[in-house]
Amino acid sequence: MRFTAGKLAAATLAIVGLAEGTGYLHRRYANHVPLSPLSFLARAADVHPERLAVRYGTRSYDFAAVHQRSRSLAGALRRLGVGRGDVVAMLAANTPEIFEAHFGVPLAGGILNTINTRLDADTIAYILDHGRARVFLTDTHLAREVRPALRRAGRSDVVVVDITDDQATGDEERLGDRTYDELLTEAPPAEWRLPEDEWDALSLNYTSGTSGRPKGVLYHHRGCYLMALGTVAGWGLPHGARYLYTVPLFHCNGWTHAWALAIVGGSATLIRQVTAPAMFEAIARDGITHMGGAPVVLAMLADAPEEERRPLPGPVHFLTAGAPPPAAVLERVERLGIEVLQVYGLTETTGHVVHCAWEEAWDALPDAERAALKARQGVRMPITEEVAVLDLETGEPVPADGATPGEVVIRGNTVMQGYLHDPDATEAAFAGGVFHSGDVAVLHPDGRIELRDRLKDVIISGGENVSSVEVENVLYRHPAVAVAAVVARPDERWGEVPCAFVELRPGARADEAELIAFCRERLAGFKTPKAIVFGEVPRTSTGKIPKYELRRRLETRAAG
Amino acid sequence: MRFTAGKLAAATLAIVGLAEGTGYLHRRYANHVPLSPLSFLARAADVHPERLAVRYGTRSYDFAAVHQRSRSLAGALRRLGVGRGDVVAMLAANTPEIFEAHFGVPLAGGILNTINTRLDADTIAYILDHGRARVFLTDTHLAREVRPALRRAGRSDVVVVDITDDQATGDEERLGDRTYDELLTEAPPAEWRLPEDEWDALSLNYTSGTSGRPKGVLYHHRGCYLMALGTVAGWGLPHGARYLYTVPLFHCNGWTHAWALAIVGGSATLIRQVTAPAMFEAIARDGITHMGGAPVVLAMLADAPEEERRPLPGPVHFLTAGAPPPAAVLERVERLGIEVLQVYGLTETTGHVVHCAWEEAWDALPDAERAALKARQGVRMPITEEVAVLDLETGEPVPADGATPGEVVIRGNTVMQGYLHDPDATEAAFAGGVFHSGDVAVLHPDGRIELRDRLKDVIISGGENVSSVEVENVLYRHPAVAVAAVVARPDERWGEVPCAFVELRPGARADEAELIAFCRERLAGFKTPKAIVFGEVPRTSTGKIPKYELRRRLETRAAG
Repeated sequence: MRFTAGKLAAATLAIVGLAEGTGYLHRRYANHVPLSPLSFLARAADVHPERLAVRYGTRSYDFAAVHQRSRSLAGALRRLGVGRGDVVAMLAANTPEIFEAHFGVPLAGGILNTINTRLDADTIAYILDHGRARVFLTDTHLAREVRPALRRAGRSDVVVVDITDDQATGDEERLGDRTYDELLTEAPPAEWRLPEDEWDALSLNYTSGTSGRPKGVLYHHRGCYLMALGTVAGWGLPHGARYLYTVPLFHCNGWTHAWALAIVGGSATLIRQVTAPAMFEAIARDGITHMGGAPVVLAMLADAPEEERRPLPGPVHFLTAGAPPPAAVLERVERLGIEVLQVYGLTETTGHVVHCAWEEAWDALPDAERAALKARQGVRMPITEEVAVLDLETGEPVPADGATPGEVVIRGNTVMQGYLHDPDATEAAFAGGVFHSGDVAVLHPDGRIELRDRLKDVIISGGENVSSVEVENVLYRHPAVAVAAVVARPDERWGEVPCAFVELRPGARADEAELIAFCRERLAGFKTPKAIVFGEVPRTSTGKIPKYELRRRLETRAAG
Repeated sequence: MRFTAGKLAAATLAIVGLAEGTGYLHRRYANHVPLSPLSFLARAADVHPERLAVRYGTRSYDFAAVHQRSRSLAGALRRLGVGRGDVVAMLAANTPEIFEAHFGVPLAGGILNTINTRLDADTIAYILDHGRARVFLTDTHLAREVRPALRRAGRSDVVVVDITDDQATGDEERLGDRTYDELLTEAPPAEWRLPEDEWDALSLNYTSGTSGRPKGVLYHHRGCYLMALGTVAGWGLPHGARYLYTVPLFHCNGWTHAWALAIVGGSATLIRQVTAPAMFEAIARDGITHMGGAPVVLAMLADAPEEERRPLPGPVHFLTAGAPPPAAVLERVERLGIEVLQVYGLTETTGHVVHCAWEEAWDALPDAERAALKARQGVRMPITEEVAVLDLETGEPVPADGATPGEVVIRGNTVMQGYLHDPDATEAAFAGGVFHSGDVAVLHPDGRIELRDRLKDVIISGGENVSSVEVENVLYRHPAVAVAAVVARPDERWGEVPCAFVELRPGARADEAELIAFCRERLAGFKTPKAIVFGEVPRTSTGKIPKYELRRRLETRAAG
């Protein structure tokens, strides 16, 4: 955006609220601009309008086009009454619409609420109600859960807009009275405008709900700006990076990579279905240099059969989060030419705030030591102010001994505003002045953290803390175990004891006594499961195991 | 810095002033941290304490040591009474002391005022008085101008601290009653503490004064944080960069590179004298990957005799500012393996805000076109919000025609607070809501700017604008001309006419008529100088030609 004289007068008036500081040395329109990732697109469209911004199959847009379409979206949303603080919900696959909504919705002043496409109708209805969405952009190929969700939400006032995708296959159904493409033509493109305050909410991301109803996490413009810029610095994202999106854009705003790419004039390649052939083809076709995704995506690349593979055009840098990738997977993908950086973060921290930064000196270490270092989540990223591990009982920092478990607490400018319409949960999350992650970790002597468990999944047996993850890791080493999940079972004598839910591999056999004995050989007595429950282990829409559900089953059994 | 429970209570109280926003969704200690480059050192010392931070000859410090020494400096300064907003002046060569003062002085709450070491005693005295320095750190090898400056400043209350350097040669003299090393032991290391407000002043940099008395430019923590992070993103500074400082650290806070290096865990190599042998030796010894400096430094590398050269260990990325490097110099250093990025900025913008970002597509262009593109200052950097070129008469944006001159105006979070103790100059610089650079440029059709002149150096002859730089460039093409400077001379008929000051090459000859005829062949009549003044052309302490001084000489002549 270039300066135009007409804008100046209005803008100068708008800064009255900023006039702080010592006398004439106050914040001004010239030297204090609200931090917003919108600025990155404005600059990209100004500086290199013709660089490719996003590609999806046969569709592609340069930065000028994304800028223009975002302005059209914002103009239409404003015409529909969306203003500062209004929620625009979106349930969409990774198509250009969700990419440009990351700019167009905040440009309208609205809050972008992207919804997990794997959710059931009940939860979608809950989110539409709870977020009080005014407009709902929804993919016609995802109508099966959306139609009943809309009915249950009882929100006849919400404006439903259909995103059509002629590159998608399968059933589709229109639920609104206009398409997204029609929407873009409904009003003149909006004037480019930054938020009034960098603290304004930009997006609303519901947690996946392993512990009950999802909570609505509010991101602010300042945090998203700094996360995007910090990602460029921390990951070393270069000018002209070519990025393949396998992370859904509904997940923590696609890890803020859409905004980060605008900074470096990089392009995003989108694919609707994350499969090995689709990824290998996109990597080869677009010369992909960077990716991000869950460890399962790495495993898909590592395990793809020969006929699905294509040679990589060059090294691919891969950001992964959610869990440390298994050493065997790491080794195989590294052989393919993929360099993995593990990161850790939460929805509440606008994504990754800790990364497993590699030190050159470690290259010379033996394999086992290197694998142990790679399993650590690591150190804080450049824009993360503090990461500490606090003793679960005393609240004091744990010693850096790699053994004492504590809760990870985080402080920084990317931490959320709070939970929408939930002051109690917000105050609880910020108790004592820092953000409580609910994750349990140890602190190593080198200052790196390593996650052990979710706080609520720690089992306290006879006064001793048992990490459910540690027990699960032992169970996974048994050849018959496909999935293992360990939770606390109330116990009259010990308070709690570990109880394991196990899904066996197809055709494999093992009984309770065998698995308990297997664990006892490798674990202290108080850590060994006292019972094994066999059967299918449930998963949430993001592939996590909902341990509250397992605990509920144990309660039902006990009551029954 | 890791979390300690003791800090929390105090910190929680301190955020009362931040409690803004909607109800419970307000800024908190957990999610709103003042932006300050101090955070980058705290993190570096936490995350990779043993990485090399700074090397100077036989002295070197890792990040833990820089952190510790900065805390010691801050503790001692606080003991001397330095608090929020107090000025600490420093006149020093590029030694570790000035590097760590970039952290230690703001950590004490003070404002770091680094002074150009090439200034005369009068100007140093002026700065000490004007800035009201409470403490003055000064290099004993630079005492010759400092001793009379201190006497003239009449500041018997200023605490003078001597920086001794046993790697320096030449005369030295102690002016204070303690050395810097003694100072570091005078108090316990200060607690690490961010500024109360990111808008707090961090440093004070006096302009070099081509147009009269120097003005004191105030930088703020927010701007320095964003400039450092934006430099990592915009220049692509990688993890572990090895940087050779040839820019004096007193110049725009060393282009903020000390802070940027902390972000990427990179090291700074310092040299006291910028000579070709010193640079080649440092590059080879430390495996330098990045440098920054004036075009004259590039020329030193390009023109070094064979015996002073050493092979480069790998590609060296070189940031240059001040003027476009001559095409011949560029060609020669590129052959050495040096990749040049030209940037543009001012003291008032915390340094570089525009860079000549290269597009891969240009690699294929003919040499002349590539050279023309490289001569442009370019496009705004990621953290620069707006750069525009405004018509000198109407104040409206000029057309993007590469021909119409206008003043460069800038808006962004790195723009200064203002000029210390000078509200009038501050309001003038911010007239109309943007920062006025005083530089004249054209805007090319591709959105890139190309500087033409300083605004006050534009000559208006018969209503036509004449760029003094354009006339100088023609004069430089004459083989006898070593230095050329063109200024306006008052003229009854035309208002102003161009007048040239020319310094001839040793042994070369040319007279006024010959040079005027040479110009007339290549320029329009109104652009051709009407008079040539032969003799030595004066230079300021930073090597710029003070055109106000030339204009003054013309006035004296006219009066005489």
